[in-house]
Amino acid sequence: VDDHVRPRRVVIVGGGFAGLFAARALRNRPVQVTLVDRAEHHLFQPMLYQCATGILSEGQIATPLRYILRHDDNVDCVLAEVTGFDVAARKVIATRPLGDRMELPYDDLIVAAGAVQSYFGHDEFATMAPGMKTLTDALTIRRRVFGAFEIAETATDPAERRRWLTFVVVGAGPTGVELAGQIRELATRTLRDEYHRADVADARVLLFEGAECPLASFGPKLSAKAARALDRLGVELFMRSIVTDIDAQGVEVRGPGGSVTRHEAGTVLWTAGVQAPPLAHTLARQTGAEQDRAGRIRVAPDCTIPGHPEISVVGDLMALDHLPGLAEVAMQSGRYAALRIRRDMEGRKVGPFRYRDFGSAAYLSRGRAVVSFGPVRLNGFPAWCLWIAIHIAFLTGFRNRFGALLSWLLTIGWAVRRERALTARQIAAACRRHPSATPEPSGAGGRRNTGRPS
Amino acid sequence: VDDHVRPRRVVIVGGGFAGLFAARALRNRPVQVTLVDRAEHHLFQPMLYQCATGILSEGQIATPLRYILRHDDNVDCVLAEVTGFDVAARKVIATRPLGDRMELPYDDLIVAAGAVQSYFGHDEFATMAPGMKTLTDALTIRRRVFGAFEIAETATDPAERRRWLTFVVVGAGPTGVELAGQIRELATRTLRDEYHRADVADARVLLFEGAECPLASFGPKLSAKAARALDRLGVELFMRSIVTDIDAQGVEVRGPGGSVTRHEAGTVLWTAGVQAPPLAHTLARQTGAEQDRAGRIRVAPDCTIPGHPEISVVGDLMALDHLPGLAEVAMQSGRYAALRIRRDMEGRKVGPFRYRDFGSAAYLSRGRAVVSFGPVRLNGFPAWCLWIAIHIAFLTGFRNRFGALLSWLLTIGWAVRRERALTARQIAAACRRHPSATPEPSGAGGRRNTGRPS
Repeated sequence: VDDHVRPRRVVIVGGGFAGLFAARALRNRPVQVTLVDRAEHHLFQPMLYQCATGILSEGQIATPLRYILRHDDNVDCVLAEVTGFDVAARKVIATRPLGDRMELPYDDLIVAAGAVQSYFGHDEFATMAPGMKTLTDALTIRRRVFGAFEIAETATDPAERRRWLTFVVVGAGPTGVELAGQIRELATRTLRDEYHRADVADARVLLFEGAECPLASFGPKLSAKAARALDRLGVELFMRSIVTDIDAQGVEVRGPGGSVTRHEAGTVLWTAGVQAPPLAHTLARQTGAEQDRAGRIRVAPDCTIPGHPEISVVGDLMALDHLPGLAEVAMQSGRYAALRIRRDMEGRKVGPFRYRDFGSAAYLSRGRAVVSFGPVRLNGFPAWCLWIAIHIAFLTGFRNRFGALLSWLLTIGWAVRRERALTARQIAAACRRHPSATPEPSGAGGRRNTGRPS
Repeated sequence: VDDHVRPRRVVIVGGGFAGLFAARALRNRPVQVTLVDRAEHHLFQPMLYQCATGILSEGQIATPLRYILRHDDNVDCVLAEVTGFDVAARKVIATRPLGDRMELPYDDLIVAAGAVQSYFGHDEFATMAPGMKTLTDALTIRRRVFGAFEIAETATDPAERRRWLTFVVVGAGPTGVELAGQIRELATRTLRDEYHRADVADARVLLFEGAECPLASFGPKLSAKAARALDRLGVELFMRSIVTDIDAQGVEVRGPGGSVTRHEAGTVLWTAGVQAPPLAHTLARQTGAEQDRAGRIRVAPDCTIPGHPEISVVGDLMALDHLPGLAEVAMQSGRYAALRIRRDMEGRKVGPFRYRDFGSAAYLSRGRAVVSFGPVRLNGFPAWCLWIAIHIAFLTGFRNRFGALLSWLLTIGWAVRRERALTARQIAAACRRHPSATPEPSGAGGRRNTGRPS
């Protein structure tokens, strides 16, 4: 192959915020980009909980990567599952949907493979308590939550009914807080008139968190506001509480005093932690890169793997300066990796990656949110308006703005949640604690964040 | 039990058009209604093909029965799979989602269990060629169709690529015609710029029909118009052609001359026929009712089973006067069965069921439809406008009007199809010709129809 005629080949693994923003920063440049992901869509993960609770459809938060990049002739999207690398030969190894192996040669590699749910050594919890990282996860949770109300309605044993009207959410970060709040809103507003036998408005939501307070990353003031808002919604908060066991009937929790309590619950949802996907280990082994405790790849200040200037690791998979797993970090680092390649082609250098913190936001309930933005701390209605504005702005590029606004209007005004179609068989598959789908990591992603797309 | 204090109990099996309209006609009457379905939603089956081709979300065509009937305190919705009857003891036997048996006693029974896809004795085709009756079917078809383009894009063998860019639709009734047209529109408008390696705009759609012409029920004039419209769209029409075999690589077809031709195709979709679900046989055995060739229950002119005035059979499951399996027949017969019970409680009789034909409509392509309405035959743009108006009117009661209008606007104006999120694993499950879901009959339903909801 003649390097004078062949454009430089960049392979990007993962179509989450990091991978997509890297691809966008390379559009219409003299490089041949291949964006490979096991999903054909970019998932807007910060609103995944709205898909799980019936407000938004899959299509409203998942936009085809090909569609986003359809005008960029130098970017190829490939739907395949990356299974390994051949770093010496500079190739990515992947599997096509029907099982054939394919190789993607590269000159530059950007690995943005994201994070998967972590059960802190209890992988057996995964089938009992689905996580919240992918669209598949969201649909499983949707079936479990709406299915639990259905099972409660036809239960004849009062204890069985109570159990199915008890929901456990593990982890009080933004996702856990949002999910817990939504389940209470669902029970008290959307569903309360629809069931005649089960008192769905009395559904209990137990939120367990190992730390001292919910939304700890937002600081003590907003954290206290969040705790009050959750309490008003009827969410039962258990702080400094570690879930030690999950079975088909409920959970065991070690509380602040060290004593273990059992809680019967039909539904258990897990939002407690994340870790790097198995692919990180494969990459680390071939490159000699170090992994942190969560399996993330330690990178140099320019986001490359030490000794491998041709490989950048960005987004949730990157361990650098203790940066959090936020969408904004993913976007900025993805864009940075692309910029570094562009500069390199011009024979120039870039300075180290610098993360600009645009703050973060979490939705608490109708009319209530918290927003942390530099020294500014907002809560209540102003924060809620800002939350809506930020998330609509985020969606703009994806043409889903009107659809999401309409769905929100229906939910906020009339408690309508349109996206909740399910069948008895789907409930059986989801609620028997053997979800039909195994956890499937997305390309990348992050938690709630106020950053803007470029 | 004292008949003076206990209200008359009506059990309705199936929440399709027939069952839902029966339940609505009994709202706020002195009867206790139980509506049992294996799905928690009423499916707007005439637009199922739009869900399958990425235009509408599940929630836009599937509205929870509980939500529709939430203000009707005398109607209970039960999510369970009806497995049998005890006609002597007047009980419906059902299975709750997690497998427990439940019994639903009745004074009056309305069976509106709908129809399932018929493969005309070739049940082994079901895994090869999914039908189009339920939401699960539509999602399977969505994954196969969008998945086929993805597989074609990364194919290295030209024959493999051609095969995945060839789609076979069996049956040229409204569903088959609509599906075939949509796949061509998808290829030539929505996806043409998104793929760089596969020439998706050249995707072939082969439509096989045993009869002389497509949309035969619309009469020769509209049928000819439909054939021309399909031809203009690039759909290849094969009339008087019977699919005799389906395998993982394609189909075998017996043409008009009797000779058998093989066509390679990655995707085969089946819309050719319907039959009664197995439940019909159970009912017939216990009541001595006759079944027609498609397994439908022959009823008396008042829609009851002869000798069983307490059991009505309505909708697609009913065999009466050769009435077609249309949504409008289902609605009218369901409403009639409820009216008969109301009259009976007043000691009055009703006349026999009379179907009022409001005509039918089928969507051909952007700006083209056919509408048959009494002696009136419309086609082209006027028919298309009427199609949109009718279907929006239909949706009104379900609050999905704005959402559907927005989705149509995006699809018609900009070829955007938002609902197409999929992953490599979903494609593998759907396209390996072993669909993850077995065909699941809906409560009831029908094909395109211009009737109005009450």
